Amino acid sequence: MGDGEQHEPMNAVAETRRTMRADALARELGLELSGDGSLEITGVASLSDAGPTDLSFCRDASHGEALEASKAGAVVLPLDAEPGPRTAILSTNPALDFARAVALLCPPLRPMVGIDPRALVDADCQIHPTACIAAGVSIGRGVRIGARSVVHPNVTLYPGVVIGADCTIHAGVVIREVCELGDRVIVQPGAVIGGDGFGHVMDESGALHRVPQVGRVVIGDDVEIGANTTVDRATLSRTLLRDRVKLDNLIQIGHNSELEEDVVIAAQSGISGSTRVGRGAILMAQTGVSDHLEIGRRTFVGARAGVMRDVADHARVYGSPHMEERSWHRAMAALKRLPGLFKRVRAIERRLGLRGRDSKQGGEAGDD
Amino acid sequence: MGDGEQHEPMNAVAETRRTMRADALARELGLELSGDGSLEITGVASLSDAGPTDLSFCRDASHGEALEASKAGAVVLPLDAEPGPRTAILSTNPALDFARAVALLCPPLRPMVGIDPRALVDADCQIHPTACIAAGVSIGRGVRIGARSVVHPNVTLYPGVVIGADCTIHAGVVIREVCELGDRVIVQPGAVIGGDGFGHVMDESGALHRVPQVGRVVIGDDVEIGANTTVDRATLSRTLLRDRVKLDNLIQIGHNSELEEDVVIAAQSGISGSTRVGRGAILMAQTGVSDHLEIGRRTFVGARAGVMRDVADHARVYGSPHMEERSWHRAMAALKRLPGLFKRVRAIERRLGLRGRDSKQGGEAGDD
Amino acid sequence: MGDGEQHEPMNAVAETRRTMRADALARELGLELSGDGSLEITGVASLSDAGPTDLSFCRDASHGEALEASKAGAVVLPLDAEPGPRTAILSTNPALDFARAVALLCPPLRPMVGIDPRALVDADCQIHPTACIAAGVSIGRGVRIGARSVVHPNVTLYPGVVIGADCTIHAGVVIREVCELGDRVIVQPGAVIGGDGFGHVMDESGALHRVPQVGRVVIGDDVEIGANTTVDRATLSRTLLRDRVKLDNLIQIGHNSELEEDVVIAAQSGISGSTRVGRGAILMAQTGVSDHLEIGRRTFVGARAGVMRDVADHARVYGSPHMEERSWHRAMAALKRLPGLFKRVRAIERRLGLRGRDSKQGGEAGDD
Repeated sequence: MGDGEQHEPMNAVAETRRTMRADALARELGLELSGDGSLEITGVASLSDAGPTDLSFCRDASHGEALEASKAGAVVLPLDAEPGPRTAILSTNPALDFARAVALLCPPLRPMVGIDPRALVDADCQIHPTACIAAGVSIGRGVRIGARSVVHPNVTLYPGVVIGADCTIHAGVVIREVCELGDRVIVQPGAVIGGDGFGHVMDESGALHRVPQVGRVVIGDDVEIGANTTVDRATLSRTLLRDRVKLDNLIQIGHNSELEEDVVIAAQSGISGSTRVGRGAILMAQTGVSDHLEIGRRTFVGARAGVMRDVADHARVYGSPHMEERSWHRAMAALKRLPGLFKRVRAIERRLGLRGRDSKQGGEAGDD
Repeated sequence: MGDGEQHEPMNAVAETRRTMRADALARELGLELSGDGSLEITGVASLSDAGPTDLSFCRDASHGEALEASKAGAVVLPLDAEPGPRTAILSTNPALDFARAVALLCPPLRPMVGIDPRALVDADCQIHPTACIAAGVSIGRGVRIGARSVVHPNVTLYPGVVIGADCTIHAGVVIREVCELGDRVIVQPGAVIGGDGFGHVMDESGALHRVPQVGRVVIGDDVEIGANTTVDRATLSRTLLRDRVKLDNLIQIGHNSELEEDVVIAAQSGISGSTRVGRGAILMAQTGVSDHLEIGRRTFVGARAGVMRDVADHARVYGSPHMEERSWHRAMAALKRLPGLFKRVRAIERRLGLRGRDSKQGGEAGDD
Repeated sequence: MGDGEQHEPMNAVAETRRTMRADALARELGLELSGDGSLEITGVASLSDAGPTDLSFCRDASHGEALEASKAGAVVLPLDAEPGPRTAILSTNPALDFARAVALLCPPLRPMVGIDPRALVDADCQIHPTACIAAGVSIGRGVRIGARSVVHPNVTLYPGVVIGADCTIHAGVVIREVCELGDRVIVQPGAVIGGDGFGHVMDESGALHRVPQVGRVVIGDDVEIGANTTVDRATLSRTLLRDRVKLDNLIQIGHNSELEEDVVIAAQSGISGSTRVGRGAILMAQTGVSDHLEIGRRTFVGARAGVMRDVADHARVYGSPHMEERSWHRAMAALKRLPGLFKRVRAIERRLGLRGRDSKQGGEAGDD
């Protein structure tokens, strides 16, 4: 596993990499080039990993030494950086323009256009001729799939599923009946969209009866859904992920919830049922939000926080149950010093001839 | 995504919806009807979403205004409610009887009865003629499947799996060798039953060796298993989910554990190995239970609690590590006020001319 | 579900069990036998479940009574134990040698050698003739699979995937393009290897743009990956799991992270992006580690801990945010006694005629 292997990806599947002349690349990006525009770029890498035909990037001038030391043949640089002799593409936002360059140099894999004869497609479907349906895909009655969308192997689309244009549905994904995706939606492998919500009602004897979940999931445009993430269908109406929602892996979205535009949620977080998360909110990893809550717009929820009450717009919350950021940091700092505080109070009580109310407790002995 | 779309599900897959006359529906439910029994009910919705041919429901009389405002053509009402001119079905438990009505009006999707020719079924299996086996299903040697059970596309059943009657196994589910399900079990997409338990033994050199996991998973009747949930097979004997256990999504059940009847566990919770959870216990979302514990009957474990010791019958526990409910609430309240307590103790020390034992610590400065 | 069913696994799929004479088994294990070597061993079980033809084991002499009471026909015993008349295999490490015996008596299931005609395999692949490729498997262009490796049904291998020798890839697994596995790797059902990392970059307007993830995942030898676990591909280079890493179920490994040799992680834990976990570290269940951290070698992270800063070699940390073991235990103990401390401070303030600074707060009333 030496560094020598670093470039294998570029060779292992040739069709996943293009080579481009630096000047052509700069032109496609609409950016200015400095240095040798005839360089043939064959790959992309970090400054430390890059080789003489790789494109790399430098977020800001502070990366000067790394840039010096790099073997990268070409770099995307901030306008104020000193390119030197190296081929450079100049950008006001190097991280963004490097990402754009990577998208051009490493286009995503696509099965061949059309329906693989080994796909299992119901007769009564509307699949755009430019869509790609791979082998082993199972597509039920009445499914609609838009232009240029790619469905990878072993995906299951239940009857009535609607998928827009330019979507990518990775292998092993399951989308249950009548769920709907917009355009440019990317679903990572193993995600489940439209599984039954978790709802039961109790009878007189205390026994639980399953509540049928007959709603669906509706997903907007430019949404991303992570690997093995689950989004439950609504009980009666819709679980709603609005445009540009980004979900990482292993996330649970409960039935009837709504995520407004631009909500970003990191891995292993969970949103319970009937909760609304406001536009632009960011939830870090392993967070949880209780049911029937309103999470305000542009709120920030720290990693592993447990949100048990509504949160106001622009709030920053941490901890479980959650507190406002400053309160939580002070509480955590105080918690570490708490054992010392017991000692101090004991000393005061001695001075005053007071006995602590719980001084008989064995645990108290630990103070002395 | 306007409300105009709310009813699409009913059109998108006609066969997932039936229309029924209100009087016929009341008769099938064994309930009394008031108002126009000839109304043709075409769908189900909440009071706010319902249209003139939808059935809705009203949990209790307190929903009076919502009922007034609703366009619902028919409603399931508590006996003491005032139906007015609207078609109403009268019930002692409207939530339950509405759920029963939904089950009649929106029967679950079923592939056609029989084995799809594109399913991959070993010759030596016993599959009931009324079962439905969809395309792309892979069924190994010696599998038995009972009457009316439905196996959706791309499911894998390893050799020796036994599935009872009236089960629903959703797409992408994997059930490994010799695991057994009872009757009326519902498994959501992507769930894995019978994966190897996580067990290793150390040799003299400290190296870990895998312990083969050759037991299985045995699941009772009327169990529900959520999407992408994992239930590990036992090392030697059985991981056991007894009748009516309900598991939400993304839950982990460790090897050799036993969940007694009517245990309910919400999403993203985990039960470690060799733990027994008593009958009727409820574990809220994102909880965790350590290995080799006994969790009592009808215990309640609050969301995100971490259970590290045995829990008595009927206990209510919160926090991580868990505390009894009242202790935990008092501790959380005290934690928020802790920074203020440091200030108070510092004030007392000043008054008495005492120096706090940790008063030299930089952190102390924060008190003043 | 009586104990009578305990032995069904051995019958349900005969080919998953072998019978062996006790003396032949001892010989294969290279261990000494005592008692009747002609006993035909037909299965394996715990001391309490074992029958007259089962092999069981006794970790140490302290299990004397259980051994007495057991119906086990044969046992693996520590050297200092008293076998009595029973057939016994003597070992310096009974747990390990029993595991070795189980591996001999219960070999894992294998599809028939070769490529099932119902597998969907690209023409341009290198699959070793001794490998087993099951029905419904989809294998893309340029995939390489080594000797004796088993790929179970409905697995998807994207183009350029490399799998070593003696690997087991269970049903429903997805391995995306150009990811590489070493030898003797076991991947449980539903795991996803090489899904896109979660990375976005903001433009001037504050809108998020997806960062293409064009690196891969490289996995060493003797690695285990649990059911529905997700390991994301790197942005540019490699997400790296070195030899003998063991991952349980529902774990998330972020892009560009590296797990060094012998790292063990229990279920539902998450490692954020660009974090390195040192050799031999153990992370218990439901833990989380932030991004860009260095976790030292042989560190121990307690269940549900949230690691937010670097951790030194051999450290033991608990809690979220994590603390060193002793500090955390003292803090938790103090937290439980905190409400009492408020009372004590209030008593002191009364004695001194002081008013607590927050004594006007309603919460304060709870103290009295």
